Amino acid sequence: METGYFGYQGIVADKLKGVGIRPGDKVLIRSRNKEVIGILMPKNEFSHPSIVIIKLNNGYNIGVKVSEDSIIKKLEKGLMTKHPGEPIKLAEEETLPPKDKKVLIIGTGGTIASRVEYETGAVKPYLDPEELSASVPEILRYSSIEAEELLSIFSEDMNPAYWELICKEISKKVDEFDGIVVAHGTDTMAYTASAVAFAFHKSLSSPIVFTGSQRSSDRPSSDSYFNLISSVIMASMSPFGEVVVVMHGGIGDTYALAHRATKVRKMHTSRRDAFQTINDKPLAKVFPFEGRYEIINESYREKAKESIAEIGFDKRVALIKYYPGMTSELVDFLIDKDYHGIVIEGTGFGHVANHLIKSLERAKESSIPVVATSQTLFGRVNLNVYNTGRKMLMAGVIPADDMLPEVAYVKLSWILSKTRDMKEVKELMLRNLAGEINERHEINYYPRWYYG
Amino acid sequence: METGYFGYQGIVADKLKGVGIRPGDKVLIRSRNKEVIGILMPKNEFSHPSIVIIKLNNGYNIGVKVSEDSIIKKLEKGLMTKHPGEPIKLAEEETLPPKDKKVLIIGTGGTIASRVEYETGAVKPYLDPEELSASVPEILRYSSIEAEELLSIFSEDMNPAYWELICKEISKKVDEFDGIVVAHGTDTMAYTASAVAFAFHKSLSSPIVFTGSQRSSDRPSSDSYFNLISSVIMASMSPFGEVVVVMHGGIGDTYALAHRATKVRKMHTSRRDAFQTINDKPLAKVFPFEGRYEIINESYREKAKESIAEIGFDKRVALIKYYPGMTSELVDFLIDKDYHGIVIEGTGFGHVANHLIKSLERAKESSIPVVATSQTLFGRVNLNVYNTGRKMLMAGVIPADDMLPEVAYVKLSWILSKTRDMKEVKELMLRNLAGEINERHEINYYPRWYYG
Repeated sequence: METGYFGYQGIVADKLKGVGIRPGDKVLIRSRNKEVIGILMPKNEFSHPSIVIIKLNNGYNIGVKVSEDSIIKKLEKGLMTKHPGEPIKLAEEETLPPKDKKVLIIGTGGTIASRVEYETGAVKPYLDPEELSASVPEILRYSSIEAEELLSIFSEDMNPAYWELICKEISKKVDEFDGIVVAHGTDTMAYTASAVAFAFHKSLSSPIVFTGSQRSSDRPSSDSYFNLISSVIMASMSPFGEVVVVMHGGIGDTYALAHRATKVRKMHTSRRDAFQTINDKPLAKVFPFEGRYEIINESYREKAKESIAEIGFDKRVALIKYYPGMTSELVDFLIDKDYHGIVIEGTGFGHVANHLIKSLERAKESSIPVVATSQTLFGRVNLNVYNTGRKMLMAGVIPADDMLPEVAYVKLSWILSKTRDMKEVKELMLRNLAGEINERHEINYYPRWYYG
Repeated sequence: METGYFGYQGIVADKLKGVGIRPGDKVLIRSRNKEVIGILMPKNEFSHPSIVIIKLNNGYNIGVKVSEDSIIKKLEKGLMTKHPGEPIKLAEEETLPPKDKKVLIIGTGGTIASRVEYETGAVKPYLDPEELSASVPEILRYSSIEAEELLSIFSEDMNPAYWELICKEISKKVDEFDGIVVAHGTDTMAYTASAVAFAFHKSLSSPIVFTGSQRSSDRPSSDSYFNLISSVIMASMSPFGEVVVVMHGGIGDTYALAHRATKVRKMHTSRRDAFQTINDKPLAKVFPFEGRYEIINESYREKAKESIAEIGFDKRVALIKYYPGMTSELVDFLIDKDYHGIVIEGTGFGHVANHLIKSLERAKESSIPVVATSQTLFGRVNLNVYNTGRKMLMAGVIPADDMLPEVAYVKLSWILSKTRDMKEVKELMLRNLAGEINERHEINYYPRWYYG
């Protein structure tokens, strides 16, 4: 239960109330020889009574100790400056969108809307989209914001039925808004984003931007602020008729990247720049402190007049990873259990052991499409180079080109909810629907290892 | 059947025979205004009769057309120079090992010893270790070479029984040789190399170097020459009492990298620098054209007086990848089928959906250890941050720290052949045996994406 003045008590509450400062306001706190400028945050229930929580413009929350002789001033709202105290300037004021832009934030759960449970040190989902936008008032510079809580789950509990729910909600709202931001846990965000991309691959009237946070929003190093502003910029301003994932782009707090949903992957357990595009390049760089973005991949699809949704995901699709020593019983089990499709993460060009090929033939005879991807992630499946690959092709295996294994899984699930005709499934798997196949690889799409 | 002069006929055979040039010799061919220097290769059975196959010092094979007025000269043997025509120099002649070094090359199959089947364009394994060393005479600069064909399989057909065979052969030979090179297909090379690393983690008297080729050795862009020389340098000169994978290190033909077997992964289907170290740095850079190497990671283990082999791999271990929509039936199936251990490639910090936790508890009750790794590959599993992770811990799941999923699989298979006591398995999984756990991550271990 909230008590006091937005949770604050005593001297702190008196000082804030005295100058009419509320959470979301830009404030200056001067204590002895120290001066801090930032956005006032609601009291954190576990912080010390004399501490005021301030969100700095680099996205970090800090606690500032306030005593009798501290001075707290309310500052004018405005774009956050990159460095505290620096005058606010907006290089390209003319590129700011008209204020009649409307962005919808759909909450699904995850760290971006979670809090640390201090008793245990663990993070639990805690969703309040209103608070989300209230605590990051910068997003109101770009658009009016509506927010709704569609789901409140950890992303590891996401599944194809929830994908359908999210697609339906987007389908209902997308033509009303200039863009939609979906707040999602990072663990399975790429899967869900690509599911939405296939459902709307025919036509999309506004950008759908998935975003999340690698550190919970009340931790000092949270990236939720940075990512949310970047996402609202892309949702309100970008010309994309596509689904993108917008997350931190590098080590510094300079830019976020807008990745095509069907080419992005979470590549690190904890880094803020965990999301990276594989076998392609991101669509744009976003500079949240400058309120602008730069297109870096001109192959994006533009907004359409209206959206076409083809929602539906088959729940009987499996993704299995091949490993030396894998027996055929796993594939046979999936066939026996009447799975509708199987994606294999093979080795190298997409291979599995020769002793599995009989089971692949069995799958074909049972009208269960089998798709080959590669556990190398980078590069392109090619079943024409080696004997084993050619035998797999003869057993009907569909090579997934340069698709990520996770994306091939989502795509097969989407296709199988439309058709189970083997020929049609193959034709659709091989056809580039939502940017999931990239015919031209540049040498730089493979990252560089330096090892320090 | 070989006919003519090492397969060569007519004018070409006459010219070669006339000056006593044999495959493996360094030659200069001058035709009109063109001059090529390289190593003469045996006739490729599919090349035109007037073409001589020359291996350039960058490792590429080219075909040089020889006519009546072409001049072919035999050059003195010596270290290959980086650029044709450049005088041979050896900056650190004194670092060359004494000629009494002995390296054993064990062939197991794979592209490094395969040929293109020209009728079909496909590559088939073709192993002749004698020819392997005869066609790359540079390796004799560093050591005397013995070669044997232990296996001739595609690496996708590799399995734990073959790992045992390879370990046994190494165990028999390792104390006799200064180093062993294992020629292996690249698809599953990292799995096999880490298997050998666990089997010999207690003590190893010589470096065991795995190497392979991303392009077959009779293709112009083959990297087998480059990798084989680099491997022999490491096998004969390096101080490692460790298992390493030595493969091309970058785009240029400058250096190879010696990766610790338990930290390396094939990250690209076709690039020559596909092998990269994850969550650590490689042990050394190897400069095959300069005949030297540089240690870049001082944490390597030194050669021991003698080797200790603990061979054995449990064949009833499964590696499964979690994906949204995965039902518990897959885990239940593995329990029902009396699998001895399960490695899960979870999302993010190592999570699976909450609805799977019951099955994980069932595994625990059935004394089947379950290990959590992450499909992000980079970073560290941590089941203490989120509720789901803590539930997994309570269900007995063993967090695999920063181990690669593939390495955790190999390690669990190795452990389970020694003990099936749940407490001992956990203790061994969490203990760093062969460099598979790296407690200190540097920021540069994550590669940089530029996207060009």
